[in-house]
Amino acid sequence: MTKFRGVFPYLPTPLRSDGTVNGPALRAICDDLIKAGVHGLAALGSTGEYAYLNADARADVVRHTADATQGRVPVIAGVAATTTREAIRQARRCKELGADCILLVLESYFPLDERQIESYFRAVADSVALPLLIYTNPQFQKTDLSIDVIERLANHPQIQYVKDASNNTGRLLSIMNRCPQLGIFAASSHVPVAVMMLGGLGWMAGPACILPRTSVRLYDLSVAGRWEEAAALQRRLWRVNEVFARFNLAACIKYGLGLQGYDVGLPAEPQSPLSEAAGAEVSDILKEFGELGTLISESAPTS
Amino acid sequence: MTKFRGVFPYLPTPLRSDGTVNGPALRAICDDLIKAGVHGLAALGSTGEYAYLNADARADVVRHTADATQGRVPVIAGVAATTTREAIRQARRCKELGADCILLVLESYFPLDERQIESYFRAVADSVALPLLIYTNPQFQKTDLSIDVIERLANHPQIQYVKDASNNTGRLLSIMNRCPQLGIFAASSHVPVAVMMLGGLGWMAGPACILPRTSVRLYDLSVAGRWEEAAALQRRLWRVNEVFARFNLAACIKYGLGLQGYDVGLPAEPQSPLSEAAGAEVSDILKEFGELGTLISESAPTS
Amino acid sequence: MTKFRGVFPYLPTPLRSDGTVNGPALRAICDDLIKAGVHGLAALGSTGEYAYLNADARADVVRHTADATQGRVPVIAGVAATTTREAIRQARRCKELGADCILLVLESYFPLDERQIESYFRAVADSVALPLLIYTNPQFQKTDLSIDVIERLANHPQIQYVKDASNNTGRLLSIMNRCPQLGIFAASSHVPVAVMMLGGLGWMAGPACILPRTSVRLYDLSVAGRWEEAAALQRRLWRVNEVFARFNLAACIKYGLGLQGYDVGLPAEPQSPLSEAAGAEVSDILKEFGELGTLISESAPTS
Amino acid sequence: MTKFRGVFPYLPTPLRSDGTVNGPALRAICDDLIKAGVHGLAALGSTGEYAYLNADARADVVRHTADATQGRVPVIAGVAATTTREAIRQARRCKELGADCILLVLESYFPLDERQIESYFRAVADSVALPLLIYTNPQFQKTDLSIDVIERLANHPQIQYVKDASNNTGRLLSIMNRCPQLGIFAASSHVPVAVMMLGGLGWMAGPACILPRTSVRLYDLSVAGRWEEAAALQRRLWRVNEVFARFNLAACIKYGLGLQGYDVGLPAEPQSPLSEAAGAEVSDILKEFGELGTLISESAPTS
Repeated sequence: MTKFRGVFPYLPTPLRSDGTVNGPALRAICDDLIKAGVHGLAALGSTGEYAYLNADARADVVRHTADATQGRVPVIAGVAATTTREAIRQARRCKELGADCILLVLESYFPLDERQIESYFRAVADSVALPLLIYTNPQFQKTDLSIDVIERLANHPQIQYVKDASNNTGRLLSIMNRCPQLGIFAASSHVPVAVMMLGGLGWMAGPACILPRTSVRLYDLSVAGRWEEAAALQRRLWRVNEVFARFNLAACIKYGLGLQGYDVGLPAEPQSPLSEAAGAEVSDILKEFGELGTLISESAPTS
Repeated sequence: MTKFRGVFPYLPTPLRSDGTVNGPALRAICDDLIKAGVHGLAALGSTGEYAYLNADARADVVRHTADATQGRVPVIAGVAATTTREAIRQARRCKELGADCILLVLESYFPLDERQIESYFRAVADSVALPLLIYTNPQFQKTDLSIDVIERLANHPQIQYVKDASNNTGRLLSIMNRCPQLGIFAASSHVPVAVMMLGGLGWMAGPACILPRTSVRLYDLSVAGRWEEAAALQRRLWRVNEVFARFNLAACIKYGLGLQGYDVGLPAEPQSPLSEAAGAEVSDILKEFGELGTLISESAPTS
Repeated sequence: MTKFRGVFPYLPTPLRSDGTVNGPALRAICDDLIKAGVHGLAALGSTGEYAYLNADARADVVRHTADATQGRVPVIAGVAATTTREAIRQARRCKELGADCILLVLESYFPLDERQIESYFRAVADSVALPLLIYTNPQFQKTDLSIDVIERLANHPQIQYVKDASNNTGRLLSIMNRCPQLGIFAASSHVPVAVMMLGGLGWMAGPACILPRTSVRLYDLSVAGRWEEAAALQRRLWRVNEVFARFNLAACIKYGLGLQGYDVGLPAEPQSPLSEAAGAEVSDILKEFGELGTLISESAPTS
Repeated sequence: MTKFRGVFPYLPTPLRSDGTVNGPALRAICDDLIKAGVHGLAALGSTGEYAYLNADARADVVRHTADATQGRVPVIAGVAATTTREAIRQARRCKELGADCILLVLESYFPLDERQIESYFRAVADSVALPLLIYTNPQFQKTDLSIDVIERLANHPQIQYVKDASNNTGRLLSIMNRCPQLGIFAASSHVPVAVMMLGGLGWMAGPACILPRTSVRLYDLSVAGRWEEAAALQRRLWRVNEVFARFNLAACIKYGLGLQGYDVGLPAEPQSPLSEAAGAEVSDILKEFGELGTLISESAPTS
C-alpha cells in the first residue's frame, strides 16, 4: 500500500449565486494545484464549507474533483454526519464518485460517550472499502477523539491516518508514540515544519490552496532534512495562518482565489465576503510569496 | 392576533429500524397529548432529534403532526440550518405542511458576528408568512443570540416569541424588560414556575411529552396565582429535569413513551437507548405522577 | 439555633491610597445598612475585593464590621484559601474577631477531585465552632461543588447554609430537594424573588449594599406571599444586576457608595474606577429607587 | 547583556509537616541540578506550588535557592499577585533575596481589560531593576496576555523574555515574529525541541527537575542542529509530559524527587500525594532515562 504523504490543499467550494457548485471553477483549481506540485487534494473540509452544503452539492464537489484529478494525485473526501447511517451513505457515495480516501468527521448534538464515538468511526470503516483518515477539530466539533479511542480505532485495517486540528503539537506526539502504524497529518492550526520534524507525513490545510508552490517548497525542505531553511520559511509563512485565524477561513480562501483569477463566488450566507482591509492582507501575502497571478489556468472560467 | 401560551410538549420523532419516521406512532402521541390538555405541540426540537433527521424525515414529522392536530392546538415546527437559503427553504416547507409557527435556530460552523446572525433570522422572517419563535441554546448551538440582537429582531412584526435555553432565569428577565412585545417561553433548563411568575407565557419542553397532565396542572396553578401550590408541585417535578439532564434526552423520552405504549423505536445511532438503570428512574417518575399507562391511545400502533 | 434569613449585603472594603482599610468608612456603612433594615452583613465577599486583600487587611475588615455591628445582626465573614491549613487559620481568626458565621470558599490552582474538595470544607468545619455557609462561584473559582459533595457536606452539623453563585435556579432547587436541612441563600446572579418562592432563606448580594431599603422591601413582599407585587419590583430592580454584570462589581459598589457620601476610595489596582458613563447608570438607578443621598450616616467620615 | 538560555528546571518547594519550607532539602536539589548541567533555576512556579505558599514561605524559597546557587547559574523567581502593589512588593523582595530575574504572573479575579493587564506588568518592570520574564498560563490564570499586549510590553527595556504555557506552538511563532527582541522559553506544555527549532532560547519545566541530564542532552542536541537525534530523544521523553499532565504536577515532582532521595515532603493539602499506580509510572520513567538514584547529593538531608 502506498502511503499518502505531502501537501494536500483543502479545496474551496466555488458557489454560483443560486447556491449550486461551479464545477468548471473547481476543476480549474484542481488542475492548477496538481500542476503546482501538490501531493493530493482534500475536498469537503472546513475550507470547502462542507457544513454549508446539502447532499447534492457535496456529491458535486467530489465528482468534479475526482474527474479533474484523473488519478494524478489521491483525492480525499470529507464525510461528516450526526448519524452512523448518514455517514455510511455519504462515504459510499464518495467512493462511487471516485474518492481515494475518506476524511471522516463525527458531528454531534447530544453528548456521546467513547463507546458511541468509536462505534460511528468503526461502522463507516466497515462499510466502505477505502482507507480512512479520522479527524477531530475541537474548535468546530463538540465531540473530541480521545487518544484512547484513536488507539483502538488504529487497529482497524482501514483506519490509516489521523489529522488533529487542535493546536497542540504534543498531542500529535502522543498519538505517534501510541499508534505507530497511523499516518499523521498536520492541520493548519499546527506548525507544519514542527510536525514534520517529529515524524508527520505532511499536512492538509486551506492556505496551501492559495500558496501551493510555497507549501511544496516547505515540504521539500523538510523531507531533505534542511531544517534551518525550513524553519526560516515556516516563520515567514506563519503570517498566513495568523491572517486566516483572524478572519472567516472560507472567505479568505475565496478572496485569494478570486485574486488569482478563479470564479469562486462568495461564502454561503449568512457568512460574509472578506472586508477590504482583510482582503488587502491576503493580497499582500500572495504578493510576498509570488503566488499572485501565476496560477491562472487556461481552464479557468471567464465568468 | 391570538397569543400562544401554555404547555407545548416537544414531540419525539418515532423512528423505524430503517431510519424512516413512524407516522402512526407520532400521530397517536399528538392526539393523546391534545386530549391530555396541552396547549400546543412543538415538532423538530432537540427532543425530536431534529439534528439527526434528513430533509425528508423532517418534512414527514411536520406533516404527520399537522395532520394529527387538525387545528385543535397550534403546531410549532423547528427550522435549523447553517445557511440562510436552506433555512428559508425549510420554513416555507413547514408552512406548506401546516405549521402555525416557526421555531428558528441558527446552526453555525465558522463564527459569525452579530450582523450576520441578525441577517439570518431577519431573512427567514421576511420569507415566510408565519409568526416566528427565535431560539438559542448555548449548550447545543455555538452561536448565541445576544440580548441586543434579540431586541433588534423583536421589532420585526413576525418575530413574536423567544425561547432561551440557557438556565439563566435573569436573562429571561432582561429580555422581558428590554422587549416587552416579545412573548417568552421557558425551556426545560429553566424552572417553569419561576418564569411564569416573572411574566412568561408558558414553556416548551421535552418532559411535558411524557408528563402532560402534571405539566398542565402546574401551568393552571401558575395562571391561577396559586404560587405556593405551584412551587410545591414544581419542586417535586424538578426531579424529572434532573434525570433528563443526566441522560440523553431523546433516549429518556423514547423510553418513557415506550412504557406508555407507543412504538417510538430507538434514538438514531450512534446514540444508544437508555440503560436499564436509567430507564428505572424514568419509570419511577411516571409512576409517581400517575402518568404511566394512562395515556395509551386506542390509535396507538401495535407494531 | 436561630436560622439566618433575609437580606445580607456584601460589604465593600473601603481602601485608603496606601492600600490599608479605611475603618471609619466601613463602620459607617455597616451602621447605616443595619438602620436601613438589612438582616445581616457579609464581609470579604467578591464585592469586598477579598481576592485583592492581604491577611492584615482581611482581619481589619472583620474586626471593623463586628465592632460596628455590636451583635445587632449576624456578621458572615469570607474565608478563601488554596490550602486547608490557611483556611483554618483564617476561619479561627474570623471567629476571634467576632464573626458569627464563615462563608467558606475553596480557591484552587491544580485541579482537585471531589474527595479533596470535600476534605477542605470538612476540615475547616471541624476546626472552628461557627456555622458555615459553603459557597461556590463557578465564574470566579475553578473548583465547583457538585451536588453530591454538597449533599455529603450537609451532614456536617456546622455546615448549615449554601450559596450558589451560578445563575442556574434549577440547581438551587436540586440542592433544596436533596439537602432539606441546608439553608439556601441566593447570590445576585440569581433572581432573588424566584429563589424565595422556591424556598430560599434570602440573598447575599453586592447590590443590596447601595439599595438596602429596596432590597428589604422585596424581601418583605416575598415573605408576605405578595408574589405579584414582589415580581413587579423584582423586574424593575433587575436593571441593577444588569449594570453590575457589565462592569467591575467592586467599582460599581464603590461608585454608588461614593455618591451616597462614603469615603470608600478606589478599587485596588490594576482594577480601575468606573467610567463616567457607567457611573451615570449607577447614579440613575440610585435615583430611581430613592436610595441616593438618604443613607449618609452622621458617622460617615469627612475625609 | 548576557541572554539566559538553556534548561531551567522549575524547583519544587520541599515542605515540612508544619507547612514550613525545608531549606536543606531545597538547597541540595539546587546544588545537584547545577552539577547535572542545568543552565538556570526557576523558583516559585506552578511546580513549586507557589499558589499554596504564604509570603514567608515564598521568601524562604527564593533565599534558599539564591544561597545554594551562589551565582553559578541565574535564578528566576516567580511573582504572582492580584494587585499591582503586592506584585511590586514581592518583586523587590525577590531582588533583595538574590534573584536574577522575575517571572511575572498576573493573578486575576474580576475580569481585566488589556490596558489594566498591561499596567500591571509595566508597573512591576518600572519598580525593580531586574530583567523580567512575562508569563501567561491560560490553564491556570484567567487573564491571558494577548499578542498585542505582549508586543507593547516587549518595548519595555526590562521585559526581555516571555514564556507561554498554552500548548499552541504557533502562538510562540507569532510572538517571535512580532517581538524579535523578546527571548522565548517553552513551557512543558510545548514540545521543547519544536520550539528550539523555531528559534526558542530553551525551556522552563517541572520535569527537568527530575530528569536534568536527559533534558540537558536534548538541549545540546538542539543547539548542535542534530535535529533527527533530538526529535528521537524528544519522542521518548514526551512520555514524561503525558504522565505529568494526567496527575498533579507537584505530586509527580515530589514523588520523583523522593525516589531520588530528597526529603521534599508532600504537596500542600487539600492536594494529595501521588497514588501508588501513578508513582510507578514516575519510577519507570526515571529508570528508563537512568535518572533514578544518580542524583543523590551528599548534601541531601537524611530526615
